[in-house]
Amino acid sequence: MTRPRHLLGVEGMAPDELHALLDLAESFRDISRRPIKKVPTLRGRTVFTLFFEDSTRTRVSFEIAAKRLSADTVHLGKSGSSASKGETLLDTARNLEAMRPDIVVVRHSSAGAPHFLARRIGVSVVNAGDGQHEHPTQALLDLLTIREHKKVLDSSLTVAIVGDVAHSRVARSNIFAMRALGVNVRVAGPRTLLPPYVESLGVTAFERLEPALEGADVVMALRVQKERQDQAFFPNGREYARRFGLSLARLAYAKPDVIVMHPGPMNRGIEISPDVADGGHSVILDQVENGVAVRMAVLYSCIGGEAHAGATSDEAGAARAGGAA
Amino acid sequence: MTRPRHLLGVEGMAPDELHALLDLAESFRDISRRPIKKVPTLRGRTVFTLFFEDSTRTRVSFEIAAKRLSADTVHLGKSGSSASKGETLLDTARNLEAMRPDIVVVRHSSAGAPHFLARRIGVSVVNAGDGQHEHPTQALLDLLTIREHKKVLDSSLTVAIVGDVAHSRVARSNIFAMRALGVNVRVAGPRTLLPPYVESLGVTAFERLEPALEGADVVMALRVQKERQDQAFFPNGREYARRFGLSLARLAYAKPDVIVMHPGPMNRGIEISPDVADGGHSVILDQVENGVAVRMAVLYSCIGGEAHAGATSDEAGAARAGGAA
Amino acid sequence: MTRPRHLLGVEGMAPDELHALLDLAESFRDISRRPIKKVPTLRGRTVFTLFFEDSTRTRVSFEIAAKRLSADTVHLGKSGSSASKGETLLDTARNLEAMRPDIVVVRHSSAGAPHFLARRIGVSVVNAGDGQHEHPTQALLDLLTIREHKKVLDSSLTVAIVGDVAHSRVARSNIFAMRALGVNVRVAGPRTLLPPYVESLGVTAFERLEPALEGADVVMALRVQKERQDQAFFPNGREYARRFGLSLARLAYAKPDVIVMHPGPMNRGIEISPDVADGGHSVILDQVENGVAVRMAVLYSCIGGEAHAGATSDEAGAARAGGAA
Repeated sequence: MTRPRHLLGVEGMAPDELHALLDLAESFRDISRRPIKKVPTLRGRTVFTLFFEDSTRTRVSFEIAAKRLSADTVHLGKSGSSASKGETLLDTARNLEAMRPDIVVVRHSSAGAPHFLARRIGVSVVNAGDGQHEHPTQALLDLLTIREHKKVLDSSLTVAIVGDVAHSRVARSNIFAMRALGVNVRVAGPRTLLPPYVESLGVTAFERLEPALEGADVVMALRVQKERQDQAFFPNGREYARRFGLSLARLAYAKPDVIVMHPGPMNRGIEISPDVADGGHSVILDQVENGVAVRMAVLYSCIGGEAHAGATSDEAGAARAGGAA
Repeated sequence: MTRPRHLLGVEGMAPDELHALLDLAESFRDISRRPIKKVPTLRGRTVFTLFFEDSTRTRVSFEIAAKRLSADTVHLGKSGSSASKGETLLDTARNLEAMRPDIVVVRHSSAGAPHFLARRIGVSVVNAGDGQHEHPTQALLDLLTIREHKKVLDSSLTVAIVGDVAHSRVARSNIFAMRALGVNVRVAGPRTLLPPYVESLGVTAFERLEPALEGADVVMALRVQKERQDQAFFPNGREYARRFGLSLARLAYAKPDVIVMHPGPMNRGIEISPDVADGGHSVILDQVENGVAVRMAVLYSCIGGEAHAGATSDEAGAARAGGAA
Repeated sequence: MTRPRHLLGVEGMAPDELHALLDLAESFRDISRRPIKKVPTLRGRTVFTLFFEDSTRTRVSFEIAAKRLSADTVHLGKSGSSASKGETLLDTARNLEAMRPDIVVVRHSSAGAPHFLARRIGVSVVNAGDGQHEHPTQALLDLLTIREHKKVLDSSLTVAIVGDVAHSRVARSNIFAMRALGVNVRVAGPRTLLPPYVESLGVTAFERLEPALEGADVVMALRVQKERQDQAFFPNGREYARRFGLSLARLAYAKPDVIVMHPGPMNRGIEISPDVADGGHSVILDQVENGVAVRMAVLYSCIGGEAHAGATSDEAGAARAGGAA
């Protein structure tokens, strides 16, 4: 037995590792575009989705990714974790481990929960979002979407991330990955929503939107969390929209071929105006499609062999040749 | 790519369309009666069940139908639709579309929601009940059950639908389909539960049960919705049972070989007495079995080729010959 | 059609029946240890998990067992049983029956609910816990775990069951099975948690822990149910731990090679101390692994042929030879 592989975060991942995963995801993306959206790659493997926080979108994306690779999936929601019966996280995880899954996909409200599990159980762990720490598959699908549209992921690109950077694992994971690739990253938001240390991550911080957009290739709007507003981090939705909402007028500050991204679900009229969300610059639905492909790549990488791309081609060939799932 | 096919309602469906679907359903019904209840017909296809209203029975019926055709299923309940996070129905649907399902089965409390989605996303939409509008697969399974027992679906038959016709999508869909086939339809219920326009749908309305049952071939009891009672549409369960409950004594008004139907779940002792529910005239459990068959036919029709019956025979043949799912 | 086989309880099962199921489970256990954890044994079969009480652990264990045998699974939780819509248990079950599952796995808060269903529907019923009556698959997995570690299941063994014996279906099922095999069973717990009739089941009762542990080969700690404490069956967790909690010091009363079991989820520091739970005597995670194997054996036995062990070997052979699921 070899040690299990995990995907706990993008922090520390090397550029070639990132690109290898994206290449793999790209090859898997085609599977979802065929009439028969299934390859036998992970037949007989078991994937648990263990979600201590609700997130239907992410859960469904992982579940589809697993099923299109022919893995079996079992979902455990927050009420179903026995945590409600006083069981510790570690006991829950050890119990799941004893049922011999191949991969446990974990979402948890505490930063570091997936890492804690990965150190203690002999099963691959994939982080599907941990507290305000990381959301690595989101960053990977964002990178894939940018690479698809801009062809490159390097210092020739400037990305503006707008909104509640302080509390966003999406922003953190993207910053880690983009900085590793040399992409220029700007963050913009109300001062209360920009973490004090943010420039130490290698990004430039702006308290006004327009200069952050100036010449940007990519603009990523973060979701406004209603609960932050209640905590008085910013006055209200209308005020937020006035200062940081992405509108067509504001988008004119960016490059003419700027692409607009959002991790969803969107608050239309708050962080993004409908004409931007549905307009020609938006690649938001590409992000969703790429999410399934990235998660297929991640699940495959955790279980699969060294020669990712090659093995995948073989599998795809087998599927084309009629291999049943 | 051809345009996706939908099943949004039975209103407007031609008799030969209805019979073709029923023929297809009949051929699929046998699959569920075999030890190996699975054919590879929809292998590699993805079916989403997107239920904004709870309905375990209907959800399970669609899920089994999909699995027996070897499709992958993913369920999204009302809490999981991101609607709870302020997302619009259209954004939810577009996000699901980007994950490339083949079919989205939708239940929604608003009439027209499935039609709205079908116009906007490039995926087959199946209406699993929309507000007080339509519930087309329920009507189809009712028709299949009647045809099975009466051999015909034409003007030689008289059907009495009893109960809360005004708020019932089951009644509406059945009235549309039966009238298209020339079946004589009577409705009976408290005046407050009969819509004023009901006779314009080509049915005869009765405010007393006995004359509605007179000579009927089929009696369909509708479920009494407790919440209507609270709204004072009728006095109480006992009073309802006294006036409109199906009892053996009342059933004597109908033809001797009358069949009794109910869409479930039943309120025993209110709209139907236990001796009728469990008696020799009841075909209620046939309806449930036919529900799976009809939903297999609908899913297959949305995805499958023109030559339904033929293709199905082939698949069934392949399955008999040992084709794996 | 032959009559369906059920697993409703272990009460009344003969020693050779018990050993045959354990042998079968042992052969299935290996499947979960392979990279490809799936055999085509129950392909095209449908297993419903109908849980009127929440129990994620048991539900997941059955679901994995079914999927590793290639059966399709459909889950119906307590909110989804239509019981919430006033439907009777029997109507719910008859409706499910009409959808033609092969097996219904039932958990219910009322003792006897699975037996009631088994008498009335023509589908195999597996009891996944009914009230304070039986939990047969838990007893079987406990037996398998003991047999694995002690090599025998006979009068040479002494098992001490500690805790809330009065309300525990786990204890009851284990007592029935162990007594049938001739195993010596002791129970220990506060007087309020020992049923008055317990010695009539062939066990010895102790109101102090130490004498019950004296020379024991196996100690099984039962879960303390918080709700019992609220009902004043025992003073509080600390007091319980002081008198009946399994600690390393107390374990010294038992045989040096004693094994410690717990049905989970554990209340660490109450009925079991962390150093016992995680120590060298603990076989708690073996129980969980054996749970999947036992449930595979039970599902297979309900559907499968007479020659259990033989047929399983064939299936395993087919799987090894590349049979797809």
